[in-house]
Amino acid sequence: MSDNQGSFSSLDPGNRILMGPGPSDMHPRVYQAMGAPLTGHLDPYFIKVMDETKTLLRYVFQTENKLTFPISATGSAGMETCICNLVEPGDEVLICISGVFGERMAEMVKRHGGQLNRLVSEPGQPISVKQLREALESCQPKLVGLVHAETSTGVLQPLEEIIEVIHEYNALVLVDTVASLGGTPVKVDDWNIDVCYTGSQKCLSAPPGLSPVTFNDRAVEMIAHRKVPVDSWYLDLTLINSYWNEDRIYHHTAPINLIYALREALILIHEEGIDEVQVRHNINYQAFAAGIDAMGLKFFVNEPHRAPTINPIIAPEGVEEASVRQALLENYGIELGGGLGLLKGKAWRIGLMGQSSKRDHVILCLTALEETLRLQGYDKINSGIAAASDVYQANI
Amino acid sequence: MSDNQGSFSSLDPGNRILMGPGPSDMHPRVYQAMGAPLTGHLDPYFIKVMDETKTLLRYVFQTENKLTFPISATGSAGMETCICNLVEPGDEVLICISGVFGERMAEMVKRHGGQLNRLVSEPGQPISVKQLREALESCQPKLVGLVHAETSTGVLQPLEEIIEVIHEYNALVLVDTVASLGGTPVKVDDWNIDVCYTGSQKCLSAPPGLSPVTFNDRAVEMIAHRKVPVDSWYLDLTLINSYWNEDRIYHHTAPINLIYALREALILIHEEGIDEVQVRHNINYQAFAAGIDAMGLKFFVNEPHRAPTINPIIAPEGVEEASVRQALLENYGIELGGGLGLLKGKAWRIGLMGQSSKRDHVILCLTALEETLRLQGYDKINSGIAAASDVYQANI
Repeated sequence: MSDNQGSFSSLDPGNRILMGPGPSDMHPRVYQAMGAPLTGHLDPYFIKVMDETKTLLRYVFQTENKLTFPISATGSAGMETCICNLVEPGDEVLICISGVFGERMAEMVKRHGGQLNRLVSEPGQPISVKQLREALESCQPKLVGLVHAETSTGVLQPLEEIIEVIHEYNALVLVDTVASLGGTPVKVDDWNIDVCYTGSQKCLSAPPGLSPVTFNDRAVEMIAHRKVPVDSWYLDLTLINSYWNEDRIYHHTAPINLIYALREALILIHEEGIDEVQVRHNINYQAFAAGIDAMGLKFFVNEPHRAPTINPIIAPEGVEEASVRQALLENYGIELGGGLGLLKGKAWRIGLMGQSSKRDHVILCLTALEETLRLQGYDKINSGIAAASDVYQANI
Repeated sequence: MSDNQGSFSSLDPGNRILMGPGPSDMHPRVYQAMGAPLTGHLDPYFIKVMDETKTLLRYVFQTENKLTFPISATGSAGMETCICNLVEPGDEVLICISGVFGERMAEMVKRHGGQLNRLVSEPGQPISVKQLREALESCQPKLVGLVHAETSTGVLQPLEEIIEVIHEYNALVLVDTVASLGGTPVKVDDWNIDVCYTGSQKCLSAPPGLSPVTFNDRAVEMIAHRKVPVDSWYLDLTLINSYWNEDRIYHHTAPINLIYALREALILIHEEGIDEVQVRHNINYQAFAAGIDAMGLKFFVNEPHRAPTINPIIAPEGVEEASVRQALLENYGIELGGGLGLLKGKAWRIGLMGQSSKRDHVILCLTALEETLRLQGYDKINSGIAAASDVYQANI
């Protein structure tokens, strides 16, 4: 390179059918919106786009929270924004852990100086109300963190009752909805979630690179009464809010094209209706699950604790999970996720999120998985198509 | 919105000529690359794209540093990545300040627990070697931070001699090249810059949202010998490097479309040649400066300390700077920046960066500025076109 040599071809990834743990497929309108002409980050037109994006995020989060906007980085930065703004050195925090992302939240609490209490669920299980009550009897956290849909294990954490219990103990509730928002009900105001973040690239089907967050007044109040400044400048919510609210004080140059794309992805959800979007996710999950059962394959998580958006399926004995994924990618352009954390090398993570939650994707994925397993010498597999089809017929 | 009302129209920002402090214009090929089909963040095709992006970044940074890749957030996150990985609580640090971005660097040192020493230049001036030597006699920093082209004031900090002096005192050198890399020479290896970061959206003309960084072995070594973990999880370089190097360990979901776009923007620079790109920036700056002088307007910074990429021009007495910017935006689609920091309300910041550093932009900007000032009642203005044209003729 130093002598100005080297050649680089045009981008040509080919088509993908994105059924891993994210990113998921993007609608053609989202690609188009992302390619709209760039403006400045304080341009009057872009400011209107920012305001509309906030309004649409409130709709998807089902909240009236004023402090609702995307952080200019990926989902884990949204997680860290919540932790580093709410946790001061020495603050007691309880994190509920059902997989890698709960562990990540716990790790962040430690890095930002919090006094960490961990509550770990049984593998493949959510935290129960009883477990939580016991934990809250033995510590006094100001904040309790939960992962709604744990992308690594596919566990869906029931929230409504557990949030009431947390509030009984006067702690704030932080919920990770990276793999759930838009795919299964999340009602920030009705459920009294104090702080919530998500990622752009899963059920919202916008490009990766943004992390929407929403904070209620109680959480904003807690930040306003901090004793020491937030240790991160880039993720200091008070500074970021001064750019996203009517003050419009420069903080950083917003990733304008990503925000164009997020706005369009949210408009698509708004047009379809948030309830209808969730019904669609549920039907596609039901069809997929019926197919997997009929094929004789096993989910890692049992009902009723499955997230309908991300499904770890155990690779049968004698089947190498990575080579199946490779074959699906090469022969069909289908991307599945490998196992993460305790499922590494043992399962496929199959995502049914956003624009990837579609009948054609479900049917093709089941077919391709069946054919691939057979080609790789696993002959105990049945067809899942009739069972999946029955679910679609019953829901017409 | 809660009753599912509200209507949102298609994005239609219109065309902009981006001559502010960034973002700058993007080439049509960059828009196209950004819209290539999304893949997963561990897809074999995307891994090739990541490797090519690293190779191209090394070309633009003029370095062989292995640790060279973009941080998945905007330029200020690149700044914070450097600070939070290199500075441990109690570490002594010296920051050289010629404007808002030097101040930002100093603020970050404090937030991450560093013991801060500030060296502030005269307004519109860089730090001199003499000032630096004096400062280094009165403290023992492990790290000295400098801003190469200060976007808020337009000051270009000479680097080569000052870096030698810093190394005499056994400190590492951190350079902000957000507004210089690609627009004026930055030779990371030849000049012995230990750590360097930039933004995607200025002279590189990629979309905003990424911050390329490069660390030499000495800096990598310093991080390896940290006593405490980095307080930020998202910006922990050791974790991010495990994703960008051959280990490919999942850290976060990369902003894939932005990396597609950055790669294409870097290919454009590679095709033109990094030296030729800098010559182009210099000629356009010379023509612009000749025009501004002929018009009777004043730069904030005197030669030889002007960054050729970002030019604060003082609004003449009696002229309201904001209304001139508004008229340029409405009548021409030209975006200039307002003053920032000590220049707030007093100057326009005119960027000549990346794809915005073009003859047609320079000539149109000078013409539109002249006409607008006249329309707003300022009649002491001359034409700058002949003077600018002479520069172009002399450089054919």
